[in-house]
Amino acid sequence: MIKKILIANRGEIAARIIRTCKKMGIETVAVYSEADQQAPYVSIADESFLIGPPKVNESYLNVYRILEVAKITKANAIHPGYGFLSENEQFAEFCATEGIVFIGPNSNVIKQMGSKIAARNSMKQAGVRVIPGTDGVVSTVEEAIETAKEIGYPIMLKASAGGGGIGMQVVHSDKELAKAFDSNSKRAITFFGDGSMFMEKKIENARHIEIQILADHHGNAIHLFERECSIQRRNQKVIEEAPSKFITDKTRNLMGVAAIKAVNMLNYTNAGTIEFLVDEQENFYFLEMNTRIQVEHPITEEITGIDIIEQQINIASGKELTVKQEDLFIDGHAIEARIYAEDPVTFLPSPGHISIFELPEGQGIRNETAVTADYNVTPFYDPMIGKLIVKENTRGEAIRLLKQALSRYKVEGIKTNIPMLLNIIDNEQFLAGNTSTAFVDNYYLTQMNK
Amino acid sequence: MIKKILIANRGEIAARIIRTCKKMGIETVAVYSEADQQAPYVSIADESFLIGPPKVNESYLNVYRILEVAKITKANAIHPGYGFLSENEQFAEFCATEGIVFIGPNSNVIKQMGSKIAARNSMKQAGVRVIPGTDGVVSTVEEAIETAKEIGYPIMLKASAGGGGIGMQVVHSDKELAKAFDSNSKRAITFFGDGSMFMEKKIENARHIEIQILADHHGNAIHLFERECSIQRRNQKVIEEAPSKFITDKTRNLMGVAAIKAVNMLNYTNAGTIEFLVDEQENFYFLEMNTRIQVEHPITEEITGIDIIEQQINIASGKELTVKQEDLFIDGHAIEARIYAEDPVTFLPSPGHISIFELPEGQGIRNETAVTADYNVTPFYDPMIGKLIVKENTRGEAIRLLKQALSRYKVEGIKTNIPMLLNIIDNEQFLAGNTSTAFVDNYYLTQMNK
Repeated sequence: MIKKILIANRGEIAARIIRTCKKMGIETVAVYSEADQQAPYVSIADESFLIGPPKVNESYLNVYRILEVAKITKANAIHPGYGFLSENEQFAEFCATEGIVFIGPNSNVIKQMGSKIAARNSMKQAGVRVIPGTDGVVSTVEEAIETAKEIGYPIMLKASAGGGGIGMQVVHSDKELAKAFDSNSKRAITFFGDGSMFMEKKIENARHIEIQILADHHGNAIHLFERECSIQRRNQKVIEEAPSKFITDKTRNLMGVAAIKAVNMLNYTNAGTIEFLVDEQENFYFLEMNTRIQVEHPITEEITGIDIIEQQINIASGKELTVKQEDLFIDGHAIEARIYAEDPVTFLPSPGHISIFELPEGQGIRNETAVTADYNVTPFYDPMIGKLIVKENTRGEAIRLLKQALSRYKVEGIKTNIPMLLNIIDNEQFLAGNTSTAFVDNYYLTQMNK
Repeated sequence: MIKKILIANRGEIAARIIRTCKKMGIETVAVYSEADQQAPYVSIADESFLIGPPKVNESYLNVYRILEVAKITKANAIHPGYGFLSENEQFAEFCATEGIVFIGPNSNVIKQMGSKIAARNSMKQAGVRVIPGTDGVVSTVEEAIETAKEIGYPIMLKASAGGGGIGMQVVHSDKELAKAFDSNSKRAITFFGDGSMFMEKKIENARHIEIQILADHHGNAIHLFERECSIQRRNQKVIEEAPSKFITDKTRNLMGVAAIKAVNMLNYTNAGTIEFLVDEQENFYFLEMNTRIQVEHPITEEITGIDIIEQQINIASGKELTVKQEDLFIDGHAIEARIYAEDPVTFLPSPGHISIFELPEGQGIRNETAVTADYNVTPFYDPMIGKLIVKENTRGEAIRLLKQALSRYKVEGIKTNIPMLLNIIDNEQFLAGNTSTAFVDNYYLTQMNK
């Protein structure tokens, strides 16, 4: 039985996890850095411990200190949230060694999904379509040009060890490929100490659509439908919605079935998300698997009525899933807008003192926030200060409610991306559902830079 | 077509109506008294007009001024909210005369339901059980004692023109009746200018359970199940929940059928609520009908997914109901707690300056508020500053979520009833669902006065 959970995270997700624990009658331990002493999540936990200075390596990534706090407080489980240690297989292993339940999948599957190439090969094995491309790394320009013949241009060149968009480039010809291979490989060595690259077919006008899954330790796995997360800036999602306006029920079902196949093949347990790129003909290709809770999980909760954090905890406790696939249905339409302390045009973080903070309220509105009025947003962490989730019967109504709610979201003292969000949801392409991962570049930035 | 709505009300309900109007693309006009210049609802309306000094007779009950604003702004409909002019049949008639849509039933039915005796007789006619008692007024002690023989003790004596609990008393014998008749009749003359009384059987351990109905101008009527509103202080509800833990599905269905019968018989249109007293054997007796939106309507919205304000507007526009009875089902459990600026023990209003105002947030939490941080609660109106609504899968989970949310509801600068609410929902009788209209007297006040 899980009786006390240490939340190895901060901000809105820590607060959100604590709320579910309280609902379940589970005690909570918050950990915080020197920069987060005043953070709201710290005060709502039953116990809270300072774990180090602001720098993440010395606090939220400080495995030793976090495990020490778990032992001192007799927490018998750790929820890692998202980011930080959530996809660190060693941390999951350390927890197991210490007899602490890691609320997530086992370390092997974290490791497997953490490697782009291993993940890709696992999915192929499970019969899930992957983006046409190399199954292993490509080490020389010559090998790359040879491979390009099979894949066909345009091609996405990616650093094998990459992340955050670094070492990625689209190429359209052998000449471009040769040049890009050279420069990106060098950059990858600088950043990641590993210059090996791999190559994938570039999917034109791709949409980012992901499937939420839940799997227990008794062989039961269900999917909670999809989230459409194509609206991104700097390769980070800013607006997500469920269900997707684009895919048909047939595709929805096929994607769900593919996700479950993958989960079964991996012997995956707990919550997870399989991300797909979907082309204009609704062909879907495995992109990556996130072996943790996602930032945008609330939209799935809103359309299914399920508390995914509660499910994670129950699964980690060894309980059997009580929800059956056939009982699930999509109820209405939900949209999440991420509120960032950042300049709405340059996307540069805008830390500082929040003087006034007033949230929208009413039917169909859910808030998940990291801050309060009279609060300092520090420059140390991700500048997301809150998530605004709306739920309505239809997509049109949900967009109108979101517009209204964003207009009433009052943050004074710092810049936020609210003007950007309002601009996007007013765009006729967005209203028509013509979202793709290039949306922000094509429709928002071009307009801003006019 | 309704294009612009004047909201003849204030506070949280005005804000709530404006939000639905915005969602529907309808323009809004707010009216406010000198005491409400800084109220949040005023700033979110498209237009707003000062209608007079703080006193309600000179502002929110100032029919002439309100109709004048409607004409100036070309509002073609008025939503009266609850209280104030919402059950004033003359106001409904004036609106009709001016060609303005009154969002509510027609004036005849408002009048009919506004009279206790007329309402009672209509219900009997519709075949709805009423509390055993007098069908007309009783004018003398002798007549009262004669009538008591038929009804049987205990009996509730009520002033015919009464309200707010004034002129009401329970009597157990002829002797008590004679004494009470005399004193209450005198008091009723003083307060209401009318000393006539009527008598009803006192239902022991009664619960207050009400049925929400919707009826259009095309002969369609549906009910949206019940709300259990037994937890009251000073005859005013403080905690409401839906569904009721007490009644069986059979009773639920019988109550719904009775409500629809009454609605059909009355040719009732728009939203309305039929209040029943339910005894320990689940016999239910008509109490009164409210011909307007209720304060506690959000709990019904949460368990049915319906926006009742939107339905009211659509019905008033002449549209046909799109929801059918057979499509409706109860989804989960919702509870509303009313947050009052008042002393939690004496229940005396506690106006003053709110310095900090922070709302609970997260999954299953809905706020409807009338105030903000740095705001003055004036002594002129009902001291309700907000409503906290929670929705969960089960009653137990909903209570736990409510407890947590109330603990995070932060109001500094004035007293609130939050300690009282927390105390009630922690009471084992409440947890067991043993609520009755005597709950606050029996379990809360006795404990406080120890």
